[in-house]
Amino acid sequence: MVANQSSKRTIKIGLLGFGVVGQGVWKHLTADRSALEQRLGVKLELARAAVSDLSKKRDVRVAKSKLTDDPQTIVDDPSIDIVCELIGGTKLARKLTLDALKAGKIVVSANKALICDYGEEIFACARKHGTHYFFEASVAGGIPIIKTLREGLVANRFPLIYGILNGTSNYILTRMEREGLSFEDIVGDARALGYVEADESLDLDGWDAAHKAVILAYLAHGRWVKLKDMLVEGIRDITQHDITYARELGYKIKLLAVITRDFDSNRLSVRLHPALIPAREMMASVDEVFNGISLTGDVVGTTLLVGRGAGQDATASAVISDIADAVHALLGAPAPIICEEDAEVYADLGAGVELASPSDIHASYYLRLRVKDQPGVLAKITEVLSEQGVSIASMIQHEELSSRSATLLFTTHESNEHVMGETLKRLKKLKTVIDAPFLLRIFES
Amino acid sequence: MVANQSSKRTIKIGLLGFGVVGQGVWKHLTADRSALEQRLGVKLELARAAVSDLSKKRDVRVAKSKLTDDPQTIVDDPSIDIVCELIGGTKLARKLTLDALKAGKIVVSANKALICDYGEEIFACARKHGTHYFFEASVAGGIPIIKTLREGLVANRFPLIYGILNGTSNYILTRMEREGLSFEDIVGDARALGYVEADESLDLDGWDAAHKAVILAYLAHGRWVKLKDMLVEGIRDITQHDITYARELGYKIKLLAVITRDFDSNRLSVRLHPALIPAREMMASVDEVFNGISLTGDVVGTTLLVGRGAGQDATASAVISDIADAVHALLGAPAPIICEEDAEVYADLGAGVELASPSDIHASYYLRLRVKDQPGVLAKITEVLSEQGVSIASMIQHEELSSRSATLLFTTHESNEHVMGETLKRLKKLKTVIDAPFLLRIFES
Repeated sequence: MVANQSSKRTIKIGLLGFGVVGQGVWKHLTADRSALEQRLGVKLELARAAVSDLSKKRDVRVAKSKLTDDPQTIVDDPSIDIVCELIGGTKLARKLTLDALKAGKIVVSANKALICDYGEEIFACARKHGTHYFFEASVAGGIPIIKTLREGLVANRFPLIYGILNGTSNYILTRMEREGLSFEDIVGDARALGYVEADESLDLDGWDAAHKAVILAYLAHGRWVKLKDMLVEGIRDITQHDITYARELGYKIKLLAVITRDFDSNRLSVRLHPALIPAREMMASVDEVFNGISLTGDVVGTTLLVGRGAGQDATASAVISDIADAVHALLGAPAPIICEEDAEVYADLGAGVELASPSDIHASYYLRLRVKDQPGVLAKITEVLSEQGVSIASMIQHEELSSRSATLLFTTHESNEHVMGETLKRLKKLKTVIDAPFLLRIFES
Repeated sequence: MVANQSSKRTIKIGLLGFGVVGQGVWKHLTADRSALEQRLGVKLELARAAVSDLSKKRDVRVAKSKLTDDPQTIVDDPSIDIVCELIGGTKLARKLTLDALKAGKIVVSANKALICDYGEEIFACARKHGTHYFFEASVAGGIPIIKTLREGLVANRFPLIYGILNGTSNYILTRMEREGLSFEDIVGDARALGYVEADESLDLDGWDAAHKAVILAYLAHGRWVKLKDMLVEGIRDITQHDITYARELGYKIKLLAVITRDFDSNRLSVRLHPALIPAREMMASVDEVFNGISLTGDVVGTTLLVGRGAGQDATASAVISDIADAVHALLGAPAPIICEEDAEVYADLGAGVELASPSDIHASYYLRLRVKDQPGVLAKITEVLSEQGVSIASMIQHEELSSRSATLLFTTHESNEHVMGETLKRLKKLKTVIDAPFLLRIFES
């Protein structure tokens, strides 16, 4: 693929969006361009970047002539080969993406929300116009999870994929665990560090990681799962009680995406929630802003990938690897081994798959109850659990003398969502139970 | 890439060698062929496998007509597109590989020793004949480390790559640590389980992992390092003293490959030896037959990959992913993003690199001495250390009453190989020092 300098084709790249990630891509493509050009056998030109405000000061210095506040001009520029959509959001991003694909450009994206909501339409559009849509940066930042799933582990089917896909919530949980502080204490720091997205619900209520889980589930199983059909829970309600008791029992609490497929019954389950995981598992050591993904393939066994899931540089690394694949495609490669545009392949992967309902989850559970500190309370609660068929594995009681209340922490033997839902309803009705009972799942892979 | 069934090209695959890995490839390609064919848009035919003994019973059932005991007939068969070289060794494997490449076939290999010794010649041959040589299975089995290094992390240069690359030695160290047994006790079990290669030195003296380190160093830095220029030490001399004291100090002992490049001084260091690593690091939790590789890229930061480094299924997974890439290439793709045949790219990567001598290593050290249990011994030894400028970080003494000897265990502050070598020489000469002093490096990434 190495040609003489003179015969090298020039590939022109346009960036839509010039925020943290866009500037990272520009910075690294500028700094390392000659090495990358040699590797790819082409010349790379950063043609233009679309910004929202031309007058804004930026860390990365770019000639004014390279900036525009009209992203459509990049999409419409016939000389541009690759468009990197890094503006986020779904409305404008969708229009620009579809326009770029219709113009035959390759689009590189880090936009998980867009793929999650409009992936089907976007992939069909790429297919129809004979071009490609690459999105390595959309899941787990710098970890090449999409390439690993589609190419490196192409020989495999995946009964289990699980992991930590949101760095911000992992940072908060890690600091809560290490410092003994409350969620509210730490989330302020996370905001100050710029770790929390403007729409806080993405990080704190699990939606960002849920978007990524939907993408991984599609790539592995050929089925788009709608967020509304998934169990999605965030980390806002986790307290030091939970973290401390989990630790005593040999667990850590992590916000997990869990994607399972039973190839016998052909049932697919995709969910996102905080879970107690055994502290001895490597996933439990994936701390701070790191992401971790465990892939269990039917041929390869279990593979774990850990790395930075977000941030300017890690995301830029993934975008640039997609640019490299895009260049490869522009030089005449057929589509990637398994390509998002291969509708037939994904139709086959997803053939006959039934989506499991969130209520189908079987697990052991962790249960926290705040109760009035008076005689007979524990008897009443354990009676309810017993009547519902919930078997207690461990129990601890913390008295709070000042408020004449106590916190009860239970773990259960295996049960299921339906039973636990009914149990929670009954417990909530008890006059001695003060707040809404809080439930976490225990995940043992 | 999906075409109608009728128009699908048939890709014919020949296997050289039909041992554990060869049979694994055959088994999984047979079982999952239709899914893989759909993904690749071709028909795959397992044309023939070369065995050493036609009459041998095998776990995988194959029609007799598909077996041959003359591997050359596979290499010479013009209808075969892809040859998988899985016979191991370097003499016959080299000849068959070169012949297949000369015939324009793509060769897929798991043969790390061959690549390490003849990679340069093989890559040049592939380049000359316009074909490819893929070898994902040669390093870390099922972990797609080569694809990750060359494609997923293409935006990066790598100041540090380190990890556990030999499953057998890791299995032995893990069991020694968990069960408190000696190396000799465990190695017998490992032999019985078929974990130890026929040439035991490959696993026990570090050569297998050293081969893999050489390959990774070439891929990351464009420079072939000769085994004779490397520090290579195995695990035979590690005792329970070492493991126990390491644990007390918060370390675990792992057989590590360490590849560093200082981009300022342009010095490359490649080494393979057991090391004490902090128990809190995730790499320390890579136990049993698992492999783990940590890649620190200048853009992406640190990424860790963990998975099965050997065994029939994991290795087959890697071979099949290479077959998929080979099919991709046969369908008209240009070479991979960075291709082993791109001599210019690797020449550029390796431009001006100076190989660091093993004596340039700077580290903290662990030192074990068996001494006569008599007055003044410790004073004499610490005097030597002090005169050599070796600063003691910690020390412990175990008396062995039965033999009137004692074992002294030290850790030092940072020193270097030269100083430690001189120190060991002086210690060895002391009449009170019974066995040869034993040294391990402490690795903190």
